[in-house]
Amino acid sequence: MTAVSIREVAPRDGLQNEEPIAADDKVRLIDALSGTGVRRIEAVSFVHPKAIPQMADADDVWARAWHNPDVRYSALIPNKRGAERAIAAGFGEIEVVVSASDTHNRRNLNRSTDETLDEITAMIPLVHASGATLEVIVATSFGCPFEGDIDPDRVASIVERVRADGADRTAFGDTTGMATPRRVRDLLSSVRPELLHFHNTRGTGLANVLTALELGVREFDASVGGIGGCPYAPGASGNIATEELVHMLEDMGITTGVDLESLLDVAAMAEKMLGRTLPSGVLRAGPRTRLV
Amino acid sequence: MTAVSIREVAPRDGLQNEEPIAADDKVRLIDALSGTGVRRIEAVSFVHPKAIPQMADADDVWARAWHNPDVRYSALIPNKRGAERAIAAGFGEIEVVVSASDTHNRRNLNRSTDETLDEITAMIPLVHASGATLEVIVATSFGCPFEGDIDPDRVASIVERVRADGADRTAFGDTTGMATPRRVRDLLSSVRPELLHFHNTRGTGLANVLTALELGVREFDASVGGIGGCPYAPGASGNIATEELVHMLEDMGITTGVDLESLLDVAAMAEKMLGRTLPSGVLRAGPRTRLV
Repeated sequence: MTAVSIREVAPRDGLQNEEPIAADDKVRLIDALSGTGVRRIEAVSFVHPKAIPQMADADDVWARAWHNPDVRYSALIPNKRGAERAIAAGFGEIEVVVSASDTHNRRNLNRSTDETLDEITAMIPLVHASGATLEVIVATSFGCPFEGDIDPDRVASIVERVRADGADRTAFGDTTGMATPRRVRDLLSSVRPELLHFHNTRGTGLANVLTALELGVREFDASVGGIGGCPYAPGASGNIATEELVHMLEDMGITTGVDLESLLDVAAMAEKMLGRTLPSGVLRAGPRTRLV
Repeated sequence: MTAVSIREVAPRDGLQNEEPIAADDKVRLIDALSGTGVRRIEAVSFVHPKAIPQMADADDVWARAWHNPDVRYSALIPNKRGAERAIAAGFGEIEVVVSASDTHNRRNLNRSTDETLDEITAMIPLVHASGATLEVIVATSFGCPFEGDIDPDRVASIVERVRADGADRTAFGDTTGMATPRRVRDLLSSVRPELLHFHNTRGTGLANVLTALELGVREFDASVGGIGGCPYAPGASGNIATEELVHMLEDMGITTGVDLESLLDVAAMAEKMLGRTLPSGVLRAGPRTRLV
C-alpha cells in the first residue's frame, strides 16, 4: 500500500460538536486546512439552524472560504431541502446520514431507518441531476448507544440497498466510539465501505485504522486537533486527530499528501480559536522525529 | 491467542511521573489494584530519595500494602544498592533499566550504556542468590529523544548480552512515546522481548499493542487511568491506560484476568487522589457495552 486518502472533517463534524465560533474563524480554519496538502475537506452542513446553530452560517462561510482547486470539498445534508441548498452552493460532493440502528435514527432524525432510506432513494436523482455525487454515511455501524451491537448483516443490507439505488459511495460512522479492532474485523468481513469514520473515544482510534488498512480500506475521516469532543463527556476525545493519523501513516511509508508541520500549525491555531486544550498527542509532544 | 498478561505500573512508573502523594494514598492504590484481578503490579522503586522524591517512602509503602498471594509484585532498582533494598524488602521480581541510547543512558544514569550493562552483569548473581528474578528493561528501544531512531541491531545486541549474563527476562521501553506500528514491526522482526512497555504519547499506544500481539508478544505494561504523564508536556498522556488495554483485549476475546468495572473504580479513585483529569477514554465514556 502506498497512499491513503484523508478527509478533514473539523470544519463541519468537528465544529458541530463544539461551542459555536464566529464565521470569520470558520473561514480561517477552512482556508488554513486547504493549504496543508489535505485533499478533501468536509466544509459545512446544510441543516436547520434551530437544530444545529453551529452551522447556521454555512452559506456565508462557504461563499467566503478558499475553494482550492486541488481540494475536494463536501457538504453534509439531512434531507432534500439540505441537498437543494448544497447544490445551490455549488458542492460537487454531498453526504447524507442514515443510522443502522432504528432507535438511533429515530432519536437523530425523528423517523425510522427505512423512512430515511426512502428519502435517500428519492434524493439520489436530484443530486445526480446537478452533477454531484452522493455518499451515504451509515451511522452506528459499529454499535449503538441505545441498542448495543449492530448485526453486520443489517449494515450490509443498508449498503446493498443504497448502492442499488445509485449512491456513489458509502461510509461507516463510528458514531459514539464503539468501534474496536475486533468489531472492525467483524463488520468489514461482511461488507466494506469506501470510507471509514472512526472516533477515538475509547482509545482505539488508530488501532481501528490499522485493522481497516489490513482489510483494504484506503479512505478515512479525521479532524485536526481531534476537534469534535465526545457526545458523552466534556474533555473526552471524539474524532481521530488528523495529525495523529498522518503521523502514524507517513511513518509507515503511506503517503497522505498532508504536510505534517503545516497541519500542526493549523491545530495550534484551532486550539486558540476554540479556547480549550485539544486531545491531540502529536500536537502536545510533536512528531517522533522532532528531537531535543 | 487466549490470554495476555498485564503488569499494572501506576504505583511505581505512574506515580513517579506525577506530583508526590501521601504514603497512605500509595498503599490505598496498591491495595485497590490488588483486588481487580490484575496478576502483576510494579509496586515501588528503590531509588535515591533526592533523585526521585516520589519514591522516598518505598519501604514504608511496601511494608503496609496488601501482598495478595494471587498477584506478582515487582520493584524497579537503579543499581546494586537498590537491588539490596529490594531483596531486603522481600521482592521476588526485580527490574533494572539500561538505555539503548548511550546519550539517554548518560543523561539518565550518568554513565555509558556499556558501564550500566557491566553493573547489571555484576548484579545478576546477587539477585539470583536471593531467589529473585531480574528483568532488564531496555529503555529508548523505539527511539531516543536525543539520538532519534535506534538501530534494532543495537537493541538486539543488548538483549543477547544480558540473556547470556543470566537475566531472566527482557522488556522494551517506549520511553518517550516514539513507538509506532512500523517501528514495533521493525524492531520485533529482529528481536522479541518477553514484555513491552508502550506509551500513548502520540496516540499509537493500542495500535502498537495490536502490532506486537500479531508478532507474538503476550505481556504488556499499562497504568490505571493512564497515570504517569508525559515527559514533554503537561496534560499529554504517557502510559497506556490499563482500562483501555483491558477493554480492547477482552473485546477481542483475549483474557486478562482483570475485572474492568473494578479497574474503573480504581481509576476514578486515582483521579481524585491526584486531583487531575486522567487521560483515559474508557474512564470518561465507560466501556462500549455500557448503554444509555
